Amino acid sequence: MNDFVLRGNICYSADPDTILIRERAYAVCTDGVCRGVFDELPDKYRDLPLTDYDDRLIIPGLCDLHLHAPQYAYRGLGMDMELLDWLNTYAFPEETKYASVVYAERAYSMLSEALKASATTRAVVFASIHPASTALLMEMLERTGIVSYVGKVNMDRNSPDTYIESTAQSAADTKRWLEDTIGRFKNTYPIITPRFVPSCTDELMAKLGSFAAQYNVPVQSHLSENLGEVEWVKELCPDDPFYGAAYDRHGLFGSTGNCVMAHCVYSSDEEIALMKERGVFVAHCPASNMNVGSGIAPIRRYLDAGLNIGLGSDVAGGHTESLFTAMVEAIQNSKLYWRVIDNDKKPLSFENGFYLATRGGGKFFGKVGAFEKGWEFDAVVLSDHALPHPQTLTIREKLERAVYLGADVKGMTAKYCRSKRIL
Amino acid sequence: MNDFVLRGNICYSADPDTILIRERAYAVCTDGVCRGVFDELPDKYRDLPLTDYDDRLIIPGLCDLHLHAPQYAYRGLGMDMELLDWLNTYAFPEETKYASVVYAERAYSMLSEALKASATTRAVVFASIHPASTALLMEMLERTGIVSYVGKVNMDRNSPDTYIESTAQSAADTKRWLEDTIGRFKNTYPIITPRFVPSCTDELMAKLGSFAAQYNVPVQSHLSENLGEVEWVKELCPDDPFYGAAYDRHGLFGSTGNCVMAHCVYSSDEEIALMKERGVFVAHCPASNMNVGSGIAPIRRYLDAGLNIGLGSDVAGGHTESLFTAMVEAIQNSKLYWRVIDNDKKPLSFENGFYLATRGGGKFFGKVGAFEKGWEFDAVVLSDHALPHPQTLTIREKLERAVYLGADVKGMTAKYCRSKRIL
Repeated sequence: MNDFVLRGNICYSADPDTILIRERAYAVCTDGVCRGVFDELPDKYRDLPLTDYDDRLIIPGLCDLHLHAPQYAYRGLGMDMELLDWLNTYAFPEETKYASVVYAERAYSMLSEALKASATTRAVVFASIHPASTALLMEMLERTGIVSYVGKVNMDRNSPDTYIESTAQSAADTKRWLEDTIGRFKNTYPIITPRFVPSCTDELMAKLGSFAAQYNVPVQSHLSENLGEVEWVKELCPDDPFYGAAYDRHGLFGSTGNCVMAHCVYSSDEEIALMKERGVFVAHCPASNMNVGSGIAPIRRYLDAGLNIGLGSDVAGGHTESLFTAMVEAIQNSKLYWRVIDNDKKPLSFENGFYLATRGGGKFFGKVGAFEKGWEFDAVVLSDHALPHPQTLTIREKLERAVYLGADVKGMTAKYCRSKRIL
Repeated sequence: MNDFVLRGNICYSADPDTILIRERAYAVCTDGVCRGVFDELPDKYRDLPLTDYDDRLIIPGLCDLHLHAPQYAYRGLGMDMELLDWLNTYAFPEETKYASVVYAERAYSMLSEALKASATTRAVVFASIHPASTALLMEMLERTGIVSYVGKVNMDRNSPDTYIESTAQSAADTKRWLEDTIGRFKNTYPIITPRFVPSCTDELMAKLGSFAAQYNVPVQSHLSENLGEVEWVKELCPDDPFYGAAYDRHGLFGSTGNCVMAHCVYSSDEEIALMKERGVFVAHCPASNMNVGSGIAPIRRYLDAGLNIGLGSDVAGGHTESLFTAMVEAIQNSKLYWRVIDNDKKPLSFENGFYLATRGGGKFFGKVGAFEKGWEFDAVVLSDHALPHPQTLTIREKLERAVYLGADVKGMTAKYCRSKRIL
């Protein structure tokens, strides 16, 4: 089952500026590991089962570095508010409902189906503060076949009365949930998840930092998303030189690329330097940054600085789970950044956008996001047959158009994750 | 055939800030004219054929004020260039192919099918410089049942050798094409279409202005889209105080709201004042303004100034013909404008975006874009049954989500234009 060959028009990123395009080539997987892409199938692989996808595009699975599972029910709703008001009016009341495992089961089954049907093969997910619902979400995501990190959220201050934990309860629940879920699934892993600095006391942050070290579990949170939020963090943490330092002093900013921070729209020079030093992954979420009025993140700068960076749908600050949409929006936003903020920061190319959604974000999961020898084998097969055109198109053109026109909705033929066909 | 009743959840704009929502109400059409919306069906309409769309949304047809038919084949391609380079590298070579009526028939049939399948009921369309292909496009659009203005494009300078006309030929072709197509169709009308100031000599502009007056035909063109273009027009027309004046002095800026100008990203105070005076319609095309790096148009300012304004897909500077996408992008762009350019210009609300795509743009076509008594009857019936949700949603929420998630692709049940069901 883990030994097979796919044939088709294979496209993947070699680096941020280069998409390799291999026409009617063979991607080989044995023992669950990619053995590379070949123009002619080597003799030693000739006996493997081969699926010929003809003129379809075969691309790496897409990697979503930031998504709120309990906000999925609210996607595309209440988009007329800025971040902090939006959280209080829409996000927190909706997340409160996940105290009920019955509601969680109904809602999370919809999210799980949507992720399975999308081109996403890897996801880093916020759940809610509720341990039982979070464990349920992990079971459901495990059944989809995609690989995910899922976090029980921590919030012990500045939160609604109906959606807050005591410090002790938050720490105890998190410890129990970690011990319950570490090693329990094949494809689903816990991740420490302080919601953001305003929601967590220093005491809780210290506990979470000790868990991250003790259990060797990665961390996710939000960082420098919105001007009001950044000002608030300055008031709450007057001794920290910048927002990220409030995570770092508790060991919650990672050390070896085991930390994802969503947004980073307003990161200072010092913050960027520390992100680089710690290998922090930026989850760039362009839809959300527009929808809740945050601004435009300086992605060209991060790419040039060599930061780890990928894309996030940020459902439901972002209104869709489609990472094709996120690629387009990342490119569009970078053009506006260049035009209206800094003419020295050249816009993202299509190659850059494709890299972010595949190899860039894939790095958080290990050797993931490209058809390189020795890497894990994730693949999405796209047909553009439903997109008529009167002229001849190159494979590069077919790929660009499939992304711009959202090929996940119209033309996904198959999806493989960790060498298993899951759709 | 022109007398019927539709029942469902009826939503339409009363003004830019107000969406009227009438639950399980009746929209009545007799003699091809809307008689209004009723909570209970008046006795005099009880014998009319009634279609009950149950809990589906019934909204006005969407109005696309700017779209390039011969660029449809290039949608979602070559998006890594700024406007003037993009025109020379992609748009002009593609448009040149429409010298062949055979190619035009193949390509325009794809566009016509796409428009028919979309939620668009009204469109203002650029064709190419070729009269035969333009007339063919008009025949094809007529068969879709949507209402459109279509323009043979004029270009007699600063254009590629293979895609340019002599002044005399351009004028003669335009005159012949006008006489051939005026009054020929029920739903398809010619519109005078100088491509933009850089493409047209004063001599040609004067001719086109005289045709507009002589034949009483509206005008469309591009205005203040891109910084490089605006500078270029200043060089070409040193005596004009602003870009729009170069149209106006030839009678090509309208007088009674019979002119559409696409983009208006960089219109000066004087230009805006003249647009207001002349009733010029702004076709706001947010996707295009991002994709070809133009910038963000100050739509809040135009709304506050009471300008006529609607949305344009601008295929293929815009990558999709979906006006649902255009609504979302208009709202998103206005949030970035507020955040990064002018904090005094509050973002567009969902209500504003919906208005622009319906009643705002509809005004160019007359009494179009709302279910008002005495207005033309265009309607789109949307089902959101394919969008699962665990919670109860209001009709306003269902409408917002249908727009954000692109209900044209997934859930259009029926489409009526000028009181005829066309899908």
